[in-house]
Amino acid sequence: MKQAVDHKVDGFLRFRLNLSYDGTDFAGWAKQPGLRTVQGELIKALTQIFGKTKDDFGLRVAGRTDAGVHAEGQVVHIDLNPKQLKRLGRSKDVLINLNALLPVDIRVSKFVETHADFDARFAAKYRKYRYRIADSASGWNPLYGRTALWLKYELDIAAMQDAAEVLIGLHDFAAFSKPKEKATTIRTLQHVKITRNKHFDNVVEIELQADAFAHNMVRSIVGALIKVGAGRVTKAEVAKALKSKSRGHGFKVVGPEGLSLIEVGYPVQAQWAEQVKMTQDMRTLDE
Amino acid sequence: MKQAVDHKVDGFLRFRLNLSYDGTDFAGWAKQPGLRTVQGELIKALTQIFGKTKDDFGLRVAGRTDAGVHAEGQVVHIDLNPKQLKRLGRSKDVLINLNALLPVDIRVSKFVETHADFDARFAAKYRKYRYRIADSASGWNPLYGRTALWLKYELDIAAMQDAAEVLIGLHDFAAFSKPKEKATTIRTLQHVKITRNKHFDNVVEIELQADAFAHNMVRSIVGALIKVGAGRVTKAEVAKALKSKSRGHGFKVVGPEGLSLIEVGYPVQAQWAEQVKMTQDMRTLDE
Repeated sequence: MKQAVDHKVDGFLRFRLNLSYDGTDFAGWAKQPGLRTVQGELIKALTQIFGKTKDDFGLRVAGRTDAGVHAEGQVVHIDLNPKQLKRLGRSKDVLINLNALLPVDIRVSKFVETHADFDARFAAKYRKYRYRIADSASGWNPLYGRTALWLKYELDIAAMQDAAEVLIGLHDFAAFSKPKEKATTIRTLQHVKITRNKHFDNVVEIELQADAFAHNMVRSIVGALIKVGAGRVTKAEVAKALKSKSRGHGFKVVGPEGLSLIEVGYPVQAQWAEQVKMTQDMRTLDE
Repeated sequence: MKQAVDHKVDGFLRFRLNLSYDGTDFAGWAKQPGLRTVQGELIKALTQIFGKTKDDFGLRVAGRTDAGVHAEGQVVHIDLNPKQLKRLGRSKDVLINLNALLPVDIRVSKFVETHADFDARFAAKYRKYRYRIADSASGWNPLYGRTALWLKYELDIAAMQDAAEVLIGLHDFAAFSKPKEKATTIRTLQHVKITRNKHFDNVVEIELQADAFAHNMVRSIVGALIKVGAGRVTKAEVAKALKSKSRGHGFKVVGPEGLSLIEVGYPVQAQWAEQVKMTQDMRTLDE
């Protein structure tokens, strides 16, 4: 962590930001020239407040969401140098100023000073995603059409929950991930909870929690579970696919519209440094 | 009701449709040449299934929503002639076909045959609207940014609820309506309920129910209640504004983004004809 050490030496302070965004109109998280991205818009707004930096405020994010994927519990950290700190003002005002500069499809809900040991990406213990599906048993409410996958048939969520059990635990999720060079696909899927949201149009919601997710992992798993819910695939076939460690199973990677990063979990402050070390030793995290 | 009688004589059957739409990208309900409207899109889809008609299927709607206003419980009726009835098929299939033809920001949730006495507009006993406000105490969740008004300050909903009481009952709402020629602004506001939605980002929701609403009435009342919630206007001032029957009070008509028609209530079938007669005798309904 060369950068963090430099920042410490030079009197930087680290800040934690929580943010939400409607991913529909973004080409994903990561800043890319010529494309509208969440990181790009955030850096632009931060630059307007704090001035230009060479390294984009050393910003790091908990989950690098793909194009079209939403977030309601995204976490990032940034470092501010002594010159930038003079422009900080009251933290309540920073929040209001930042939101006034950001487009309406991004909102920052928290902007607080944190310890240099905090790392939005490497100190995270878990990520929780929610995939929302409006099936024929739900209201198909167009007011929330940008946040759900729409299916014309009804899903059997009990069958889906039952099949999901074979995925829980420490596995190589190669069969349910898009391969990335030099990156492992071994992850611990901590839980999968499938419910109908009685308070939200009776849509099906699949909540998945893991230490971290490999690329396309949530959307691959959801694709398989939908086939189970439609009665076209069995629990045994899902188990077999997982064991194969191959993408030859033919389950579809579903679209990004139903997916939202809803929570990132961190240990207590005393364990941040240890968690960062453990994560970095273990693997390159993909998202 | 000349049209309904003709339809009866000629072997027409009447159908009730329930529909929802995200009003953001529509120039309102009413069909207008060259503009994208909900009625226009609905007629277009119905025409593709049932063929062209001279009178747009004699369609009538419960609430003619303005540009940008949403609906989750809109009701319309249409009449189909014997030739069109041949194209009907199973009602479950009509629903699927219709939704396949409609843009994704409109969904039909119900398509059922009804009695000729049913009238989506004139048989309605009440309309219920919801106005949603994301204030600083809520999550400002951009995933639902198209469905709420955003305020930077926190609203005192107890004060708003208290002030709303002076509006309940039979009143001339001229002070809270946009005048329309030859139309009365006397209405019965049956209830106003203001809550924080604990299941939906803690946003403030104002539910208003009336026999019918005059033009701009919901958005004018909400504008006044927001000033109360912000501590800038008292209950007594709202009462005074109502009594003045004049729009000189300076309360703002809030934007359409937070507004949704969520329910239309009808009496039991035996009372439809009577309700239609009563409504037509009483006044011209605006929405």
